[in-house]
Amino acid sequence: MSLYEACIPQMSKMLENLSAWLDKAAASAEARGFEPEVLLNARLAPDQFNLTRQIQAAADTAKFAGARLSGKEAPSHPDTETTLDELRARLKASVEFLRGLTAEDFKGAADREIVLPFLPDMGTRGADYFNEFVLPNFYFHATTAYAILRHNGVDVGKRDFIGGMKLFPKSAPAS
Amino acid sequence: MSLYEACIPQMSKMLENLSAWLDKAAASAEARGFEPEVLLNARLAPDQFNLTRQIQAAADTAKFAGARLSGKEAPSHPDTETTLDELRARLKASVEFLRGLTAEDFKGAADREIVLPFLPDMGTRGADYFNEFVLPNFYFHATTAYAILRHNGVDVGKRDFIGGMKLFPKSAPAS
Repeated sequence: MSLYEACIPQMSKMLENLSAWLDKAAASAEARGFEPEVLLNARLAPDQFNLTRQIQAAADTAKFAGARLSGKEAPSHPDTETTLDELRARLKASVEFLRGLTAEDFKGAADREIVLPFLPDMGTRGADYFNEFVLPNFYFHATTAYAILRHNGVDVGKRDFIGGMKLFPKSAPAS
Repeated sequence: MSLYEACIPQMSKMLENLSAWLDKAAASAEARGFEPEVLLNARLAPDQFNLTRQIQAAADTAKFAGARLSGKEAPSHPDTETTLDELRARLKASVEFLRGLTAEDFKGAADREIVLPFLPDMGTRGADYFNEFVLPNFYFHATTAYAILRHNGVDVGKRDFIGGMKLFPKSAPAS
């Protein structure tokens, strides 16, 4: 399995799914008569990130994964978003960066040494960084964003979470 | 990157992490003077799975991924758990099945045709099944289980979620 394939198309799609959940959040707020930005400050526990920071963290986890695994520089996003539109723009910019990376950029990524800013004396192998750190963090923040919306009555469902899948007609059984 | 490596060690570790969150849930319930099973019926939205079903779904997503990608039969777990101990046993049994699979069992798994029970006429490539279906579903249920505990005041934190990582001392810079 290619690390590029596991990383770029899937995380880009998930960030686009997340943006679509925000569309549903805006529609739900309008239908129920409150400002959609109320949801951006919602959180599931007093000492956990609110929706805005969950979205920023999901976008950054994906962006830095793309940058570190390819050796490219990540674009800077200073976490200043205060509206749904700004968060959708943040997600779009992150997806554009990710989709700009190529399979060629990921050559050798699985064995590349990755150093995390909060563990400056340690290294981890690219594939381990991706499996043990990027994916759990990425899905953690995406799922928590989804859960905050669900908990606040936005009608997102599992299909919105998963999004499209690459399917083909089943092969005929061997006769 | 090997699909075995992305699947078996990481999902097994996450299920073990989940079991450790249940230890914290039991301790928290005892300290606060309520039955730990109260938490098993907690949910974040009225039309979303409760904690018990989130745990069963996380365990099954991992178990069926291991089975489908290796072509082995998954053990049957009939979703009858009603206590924390039973859920921990379910997680343990799932991890034992997963850790019993080998890299050799996963030979060709990335290109294996996978057919999902709810899409009986369609196939998906093993790697796509894993990236587009297994991982988002697996982390969805694990994160939602974690969020239910967090929302109910159990002191789980991000380190409990991520668990251990394979690290090594950073290479010396080239001189």
